Amino acid sequence: MAGTPLTTHTQVVSGWAAHDPSGKIVPYTFKRRENGPNDVTIKVLYCGICHTDLHFAKNDWGITVYPVVPGHEITGIVTVVGSQVTNFKIGDRVGVGCMAATCLECDFCKQSQENYCDKMQLTYNGIFWDGSITYGGYSKSLVADYRFVVHVPESLPMDRAAPLLCAGVTVFCPLKDNNLVGNPGKRIGIIGMGGLGHLGVKFGKAFGHHVTVISTSPSKEKEAKERLGADDFILSTDADQMQAKKRSIDFILDTVSAKHSLGPYLELLKVNGTLVLVAAPDNPVDLPSFPLIFGKRTVKGSVIGSMEETQEMLNICAKFNILCDIESVTPDKINVAFDRLVKNDIKYRFVIDIAGNPTSSL
Amino acid sequence: MAGTPLTTHTQVVSGWAAHDPSGKIVPYTFKRRENGPNDVTIKVLYCGICHTDLHFAKNDWGITVYPVVPGHEITGIVTVVGSQVTNFKIGDRVGVGCMAATCLECDFCKQSQENYCDKMQLTYNGIFWDGSITYGGYSKSLVADYRFVVHVPESLPMDRAAPLLCAGVTVFCPLKDNNLVGNPGKRIGIIGMGGLGHLGVKFGKAFGHHVTVISTSPSKEKEAKERLGADDFILSTDADQMQAKKRSIDFILDTVSAKHSLGPYLELLKVNGTLVLVAAPDNPVDLPSFPLIFGKRTVKGSVIGSMEETQEMLNICAKFNILCDIESVTPDKINVAFDRLVKNDIKYRFVIDIAGNPTSSL
Repeated sequence: MAGTPLTTHTQVVSGWAAHDPSGKIVPYTFKRRENGPNDVTIKVLYCGICHTDLHFAKNDWGITVYPVVPGHEITGIVTVVGSQVTNFKIGDRVGVGCMAATCLECDFCKQSQENYCDKMQLTYNGIFWDGSITYGGYSKSLVADYRFVVHVPESLPMDRAAPLLCAGVTVFCPLKDNNLVGNPGKRIGIIGMGGLGHLGVKFGKAFGHHVTVISTSPSKEKEAKERLGADDFILSTDADQMQAKKRSIDFILDTVSAKHSLGPYLELLKVNGTLVLVAAPDNPVDLPSFPLIFGKRTVKGSVIGSMEETQEMLNICAKFNILCDIESVTPDKINVAFDRLVKNDIKYRFVIDIAGNPTSSL
Repeated sequence: MAGTPLTTHTQVVSGWAAHDPSGKIVPYTFKRRENGPNDVTIKVLYCGICHTDLHFAKNDWGITVYPVVPGHEITGIVTVVGSQVTNFKIGDRVGVGCMAATCLECDFCKQSQENYCDKMQLTYNGIFWDGSITYGGYSKSLVADYRFVVHVPESLPMDRAAPLLCAGVTVFCPLKDNNLVGNPGKRIGIIGMGGLGHLGVKFGKAFGHHVTVISTSPSKEKEAKERLGADDFILSTDADQMQAKKRSIDFILDTVSAKHSLGPYLELLKVNGTLVLVAAPDNPVDLPSFPLIFGKRTVKGSVIGSMEETQEMLNICAKFNILCDIESVTPDKINVAFDRLVKNDIKYRFVIDIAGNPTSSL
């Protein structure tokens, strides 16, 4: 049995890990830290499969520490509460997203923007304050500092809420930051209709905007309009459609993680329009100068959200009944899910039913 | 003698043009329109050589209509005033920049942002309202609609003021748009210390900021600090220097027209920092997602400025004594200047002494 060498890590946990760049996920038993005064221990119910999990499992970014237990879209039930924790109690429905720790002291931490703290550590493949490598939500239980845990509103089913912890807040924050929450009537575009994009459509419609899905797949038009409620659809491979919609959109959310050029999409923006990149393509995207400068346009980046924003987002999802469309898989099917994810064969997020499947438990 | 076919084009003008993609500039005689009721005719004194001139002379962007008479950094004296023109009189010191015409009717035109009008036509290689191709400032005289002419303050010498009409307003507007005029004490970076960049340093210092020049040329450090007054210098090819200055700069003006990656420069920006591209590289720049999203950074474009902003900029230059550093050339040396421009062998702008040299006049 592998595990960390720290003597304070005493809780034996069963989970699922990748051990090498094949990315193959296998059952894995390891130890987590004792529940400290600021910690809660969570029985994990569900964990979404984010594309980032696949990148880390396969060491696509060259920074993976094996074995890696992925998972940062976690919902579960509090089972242990530390002595200093006042905002959670045993039995609470909670969620954990991408962050395990930040410095708590910098300006960003103090201003509830801790997702931009220079010392932010991820829920998995991060280094916790005690020096241990963090392990994520592909596991039966999790120990988390209370500052990185949120409440899941009662009305949200735990399985469909899980991906909101990463995908949801990732698309919510750029809308909020660009004054698109509580300010209806804008024309917004969503590039890519996957896990992030389909949530972008839902948030955009909930916030009262005219939403256009921009996609390379003509087959997505019907789905975008009829099931997700998008108002318009632009087939980005059709030059005539792209030309006809020049300078028509106020704001674009770009959720595409494949290499692409921003040029054609920037042309769709009005002068002074903004495109926000939220995906993390392995390679740089192409940014042609002309559509940027001649339209005084803006390209921004945004990564997840703060814990405060994550809670705000969940509360808004409860209010507007925004949920992720998911396909549930048992833990022994994670590799199948990974393979299908590579082929974009998922509407729109795999969620691992961690607690419901006895097959892979110890 | 070449010329336009329009019967209203009756003024014979001597100038200098390129006739093919060799880009070689030769004397050229052509006709300009009669001075209409909204026009002023200008005796051209000086015309700056912008890198754009070279791109058009050589048809680098595939849109050149030959023969092309370049030049959009023009200063001169009003010699004829149309009957409807009230804000200029004969003898006025004036300037003309990049714009010859806009639609005058769209929201941008109405809001003094006509440089973003979709129908904006350039001072040369544009199509004027009468359907004629526009010819620029490499010529003895110019006819311009009064709405696209500005006053050159008395204290500004006409030769060193000429490049302000394009280069000056190109760097001024992003500073203004990003609240860096009248709001001192920010840390700003200037990438590239050429025609645009050296003016960026001057504006930055005049507006009370801490200015860092970021360059690939170690030889520019002394010049940047001692002559232009920059506070700091980062050699962008030195990984240690770049690492040491991570997250230290509020705003970067990127004046580089060669292909490059924005990644290393974005890392220099603080979280929420902004980089503005003002150059027009032939090829897209590389935009890696990670430094953009993990720093919630912004990349914007900006192109020249409105006529109102151009006048404001000139008035500010007069107030702060901001002038372009130039090397004056006679019209018969334009090709030599072009060759040296390709090699960046100029501090910092060539200006053609149009009126002072009799050699090439008719």
